[in-house]
Amino acid sequence: MEKVKVGVVGYGVIGQRLADGVARQGDMELVGVADVAPTLSVRALAERGMPYDLYCSIDDTSALDEAGIPVSGKLVDMLEKVDIVLDATSAGVGAKNKELYKKYGVKAVFQGGEKNDVADVFFHGYANYEKGVGADFLKLTSCNTTGLIRAADCINRAVGLEKVAITIIRRVADPGDYHRGLTNALQVDQAPNHQAVDLMTIMPEVDATGILVHTPVTHGHIISIVASPKKEISKEELLELFEAHPRIRVVRLKDGFLGNASLFRYARDLGNMRGDMYEIAVWEETIVRSGKDIMFAINIPQEAIVIPETMDAIRAAMKMQTTREEGTQKTNEYLGMK
Amino acid sequence: MEKVKVGVVGYGVIGQRLADGVARQGDMELVGVADVAPTLSVRALAERGMPYDLYCSIDDTSALDEAGIPVSGKLVDMLEKVDIVLDATSAGVGAKNKELYKKYGVKAVFQGGEKNDVADVFFHGYANYEKGVGADFLKLTSCNTTGLIRAADCINRAVGLEKVAITIIRRVADPGDYHRGLTNALQVDQAPNHQAVDLMTIMPEVDATGILVHTPVTHGHIISIVASPKKEISKEELLELFEAHPRIRVVRLKDGFLGNASLFRYARDLGNMRGDMYEIAVWEETIVRSGKDIMFAINIPQEAIVIPETMDAIRAAMKMQTTREEGTQKTNEYLGMK
Amino acid sequence: MEKVKVGVVGYGVIGQRLADGVARQGDMELVGVADVAPTLSVRALAERGMPYDLYCSIDDTSALDEAGIPVSGKLVDMLEKVDIVLDATSAGVGAKNKELYKKYGVKAVFQGGEKNDVADVFFHGYANYEKGVGADFLKLTSCNTTGLIRAADCINRAVGLEKVAITIIRRVADPGDYHRGLTNALQVDQAPNHQAVDLMTIMPEVDATGILVHTPVTHGHIISIVASPKKEISKEELLELFEAHPRIRVVRLKDGFLGNASLFRYARDLGNMRGDMYEIAVWEETIVRSGKDIMFAINIPQEAIVIPETMDAIRAAMKMQTTREEGTQKTNEYLGMK
Amino acid sequence: MEKVKVGVVGYGVIGQRLADGVARQGDMELVGVADVAPTLSVRALAERGMPYDLYCSIDDTSALDEAGIPVSGKLVDMLEKVDIVLDATSAGVGAKNKELYKKYGVKAVFQGGEKNDVADVFFHGYANYEKGVGADFLKLTSCNTTGLIRAADCINRAVGLEKVAITIIRRVADPGDYHRGLTNALQVDQAPNHQAVDLMTIMPEVDATGILVHTPVTHGHIISIVASPKKEISKEELLELFEAHPRIRVVRLKDGFLGNASLFRYARDLGNMRGDMYEIAVWEETIVRSGKDIMFAINIPQEAIVIPETMDAIRAAMKMQTTREEGTQKTNEYLGMK
Repeated sequence: MEKVKVGVVGYGVIGQRLADGVARQGDMELVGVADVAPTLSVRALAERGMPYDLYCSIDDTSALDEAGIPVSGKLVDMLEKVDIVLDATSAGVGAKNKELYKKYGVKAVFQGGEKNDVADVFFHGYANYEKGVGADFLKLTSCNTTGLIRAADCINRAVGLEKVAITIIRRVADPGDYHRGLTNALQVDQAPNHQAVDLMTIMPEVDATGILVHTPVTHGHIISIVASPKKEISKEELLELFEAHPRIRVVRLKDGFLGNASLFRYARDLGNMRGDMYEIAVWEETIVRSGKDIMFAINIPQEAIVIPETMDAIRAAMKMQTTREEGTQKTNEYLGMK
Repeated sequence: MEKVKVGVVGYGVIGQRLADGVARQGDMELVGVADVAPTLSVRALAERGMPYDLYCSIDDTSALDEAGIPVSGKLVDMLEKVDIVLDATSAGVGAKNKELYKKYGVKAVFQGGEKNDVADVFFHGYANYEKGVGADFLKLTSCNTTGLIRAADCINRAVGLEKVAITIIRRVADPGDYHRGLTNALQVDQAPNHQAVDLMTIMPEVDATGILVHTPVTHGHIISIVASPKKEISKEELLELFEAHPRIRVVRLKDGFLGNASLFRYARDLGNMRGDMYEIAVWEETIVRSGKDIMFAINIPQEAIVIPETMDAIRAAMKMQTTREEGTQKTNEYLGMK
Repeated sequence: MEKVKVGVVGYGVIGQRLADGVARQGDMELVGVADVAPTLSVRALAERGMPYDLYCSIDDTSALDEAGIPVSGKLVDMLEKVDIVLDATSAGVGAKNKELYKKYGVKAVFQGGEKNDVADVFFHGYANYEKGVGADFLKLTSCNTTGLIRAADCINRAVGLEKVAITIIRRVADPGDYHRGLTNALQVDQAPNHQAVDLMTIMPEVDATGILVHTPVTHGHIISIVASPKKEISKEELLELFEAHPRIRVVRLKDGFLGNASLFRYARDLGNMRGDMYEIAVWEETIVRSGKDIMFAINIPQEAIVIPETMDAIRAAMKMQTTREEGTQKTNEYLGMK
Repeated sequence: MEKVKVGVVGYGVIGQRLADGVARQGDMELVGVADVAPTLSVRALAERGMPYDLYCSIDDTSALDEAGIPVSGKLVDMLEKVDIVLDATSAGVGAKNKELYKKYGVKAVFQGGEKNDVADVFFHGYANYEKGVGADFLKLTSCNTTGLIRAADCINRAVGLEKVAITIIRRVADPGDYHRGLTNALQVDQAPNHQAVDLMTIMPEVDATGILVHTPVTHGHIISIVASPKKEISKEELLELFEAHPRIRVVRLKDGFLGNASLFRYARDLGNMRGDMYEIAVWEETIVRSGKDIMFAINIPQEAIVIPETMDAIRAAMKMQTTREEGTQKTNEYLGMK
């Protein structure tokens, strides 16, 4: 069977990782990546010897040329060669790019920063895979929503989920960010946060609301979830569900996983490319009952978490696998998730 | 009527503020403060010209003498002059001091760091004032618990409170702390946190549990609360309750109160001594309904929050006022809380 | 003698403190402060009961009115009553305001954010007081430069100063700032930094250069200075010079002054309004010889440090005192600096 | 020629990287690593499938056994198989281990945390390689000193170096550290810092002093250096020297390298194991002249910087290469440094 040809537009924090993710899928071919300028990410690509071809998203390649970055062509050249693009450009740019994708007849998967109406389907690999099957334009859930839905969907399929009330303790910047930051301050957002609203869009049977607080850290969000299941569930049963999920990693404080920074260090020590982790983590010692509700905390590795679900989106859009089970399993297999 | 004579033992972050609080109570007399060494707090007292007499808690006054700090006597000299002491020493020291207090026949109020069994009553001015009336040894709730109970008690008295599930986003150090800190990390604690357990000790009719995450900031905790009232309550009704509470301040994101740092800045700009605030704050825009539950976020100014409830404790222990209404009202009046 | 009438335009971090500073000068009268909107600073002024009259800098007072802030008139009303204004508006606004000040025939002192050409004199109370005498438009040095020049001028007057090479470890935001920040990152600026260049403008006989690194903290910059004096100076002699300077505070690590956060805490514990400090601090244990050079570290309390030198500027511009010694001494006296 | 057999004792932040470094040397064999407990680093080794054999440094292997970590034997079993050990245990433990190494007749290289008298030679690959040739016990310079000496030695060999005055802006914790941290504070150390003293021990012809300030970040120190060369040197000449050095990377602000966090991100994006970087970086835009002195800022990637010089130490101790040029070149070649 011929491999599906994929291009990545926007080679930043997410775009780099999408490219790596596609490169690991045995049934996909990464045609190349596109960007506009010799950013540090692009310079690193060049120093690595251009493992991926670079296309220029704008007409003027002089900045890239002057920086000595080899350019394989323009974005449109890449579009002629691909079946589908992963758009990881800055928020708002994807909506503009869509016209170009349409013109060149390529499908596209947008990231969480774009507005929902850019796409036909607002997609999550585990929660609504089937809706994405054959779709032309899909939008992924954002990093927090992706991880949150993994946990919510896992509970929902097992015992039914009535509602969740979440508290997102959000990292304010990525490692290396200088254009945004917060210093010695917690910042409160208007409630309900968009992640709760997005969860309800993807899982309309669940009521969701929540509060979001930004914190001055760079590695991973922590979400505290109060879940009201339809059928009571014990701590042990919940643990069992999470342990069986390929994209959820159960960790323990007593083993040394003391917070988000332990998980980042652990992923680096595993030798993962860029020190990334695809799984959300659940701390075993945070699971407590609150009456009939159950409460627990998860970790969201914001840089890499959407990679698996985006691979799922390609599989759905390109009808590589037409069911959730087959699609997610294939992604998990290629990404080495249990 | 003669003023109640009060001494403060331990002149650190809390002890300084307790002394200031007592000095503002028109019906109390601050006999003095006691500490062991020329700490920065003690040096600041000296640079201010010794508005409060200092007693030395240890036999050897040489370190204080060498630093040029005027000493008015030993701790026992102070104990001979007071009716009651506020013990704000480091955790564990208060239990040892208790023997001395007994010997000198003075009552004592301990702070949250001590174990519960140091005291006859685990006390909160609003939730169980009457239990403290006439008691010899009281222990205050810790900073987070004090603020949490203000909100929980407020709801409970209005519509009944069945349970709360809380997420504490905790500051890891006080401004000026060098002996503890956290850098670019969130740290997760074993659940349930002690604040939930303490709440249930003070308010046994309420079920409480929660998750606590330490964050690298110094000004104020934020607690996200999912409350299950016995009788449904709307956002507007809850706001009204909070606005009527003298120790709760309702603030708005749209007015510029963006997080804990805004509140700290505001308290400084008010000209409050040390930039302190006695009230917890509730962000209006965080109040949301979650089914029959109601969710909201409060701010805990950790350095000063326990001052009002400790003043209440003196009033109760010394039978200055024998009801919750009278006692808290007197404290509020002297501290200038609406 | 009639008091000099002063107005403050821009009631933010600096403007608030300028107003407080003027209010403490026995020979000045604070006519009022002007701002455009119900910021937190303005709300705090109102909650304090309007100790200073507020004028509105724009025509539309509706936002202030809706917030319930009492307004005493428009900016031009204030300008009619004052001899001199302290302009503490955002960078660039002062240059626009200057036309208005000219029209109303009032003198003005601008802050460090404005370009040098806004003023006739680039001013520092200790280094070039006489240049400001009788001037109409003065610009203060910025916070770091003000503190740096205090130390450089002190050495220069005693033993002559040939050159300085400085490393500024800069706080990135003020407490309460949410519009800027840095998270887990140090940021390097192009060398030489503007503070070195500004020092040479004020003290043309000294060669200065330096490197600036932003750090994720909010309380106080630390500047490491390598000074090349014309005549050798020992650590003890330098200490003596600094100890004799009314705007320099010598502190010791061994006394507990471990860094910028200790100084901020100490200023709060002194009961200073807003926890402010007017002095720079020098750590005794950082003074070391490097060949014929001498090296030491100072702390810059960025929120309040320019207040004394701005008071000096009023004195010079209004010819209240015509010599550096008299002018700075009067300021020091009213601000309580030894 | 037979490969030199190397063991690593202590598998933490440094030990892990030493093991990786040895594994990359074509003329060395990594026999194994030793540690005492199932730390996160050891757990990551196990999850990676034990690419390196693990030996237990204590008699009781039960904790490792319970965690399911395969153990290949005791530390002494490893010592019987190796020629030399790299001791990366906690400060002070190396001194105790030395007796064991002597007993088993193996040479050892200690890290910077140990006291100097643990070793016969205080070693830096570029500055005093020859002193280490054939030595039994060597101690590496600490992370900052290692990087600082790279730059100082580079200048010294070219134009002679009379003195340096350094300001170290130090990271306070490593990513993942929860046992130490600093929150919203800069902390000042007693001057001169040990790095300046250590530099003089290794390079006795140079006078060195300096000030050190801890900052709340985790990725890389920045050192500001005022160097007094014996012969004047221009910015361009210095740049040329640095660009020719295999362990120094010249970077530019204008290319996007804005600070230590950019370098950490870049190393991750290069796909380097653990996101590590072996080179120090110099920012081109920070190089400025200060009279006859020259000033510049370097970045120290604290987790990995000592790896190359430790490989040099093995080469020297084992007489694999007997000159600085040959030894460092071989290390650079295997580690892929230009």
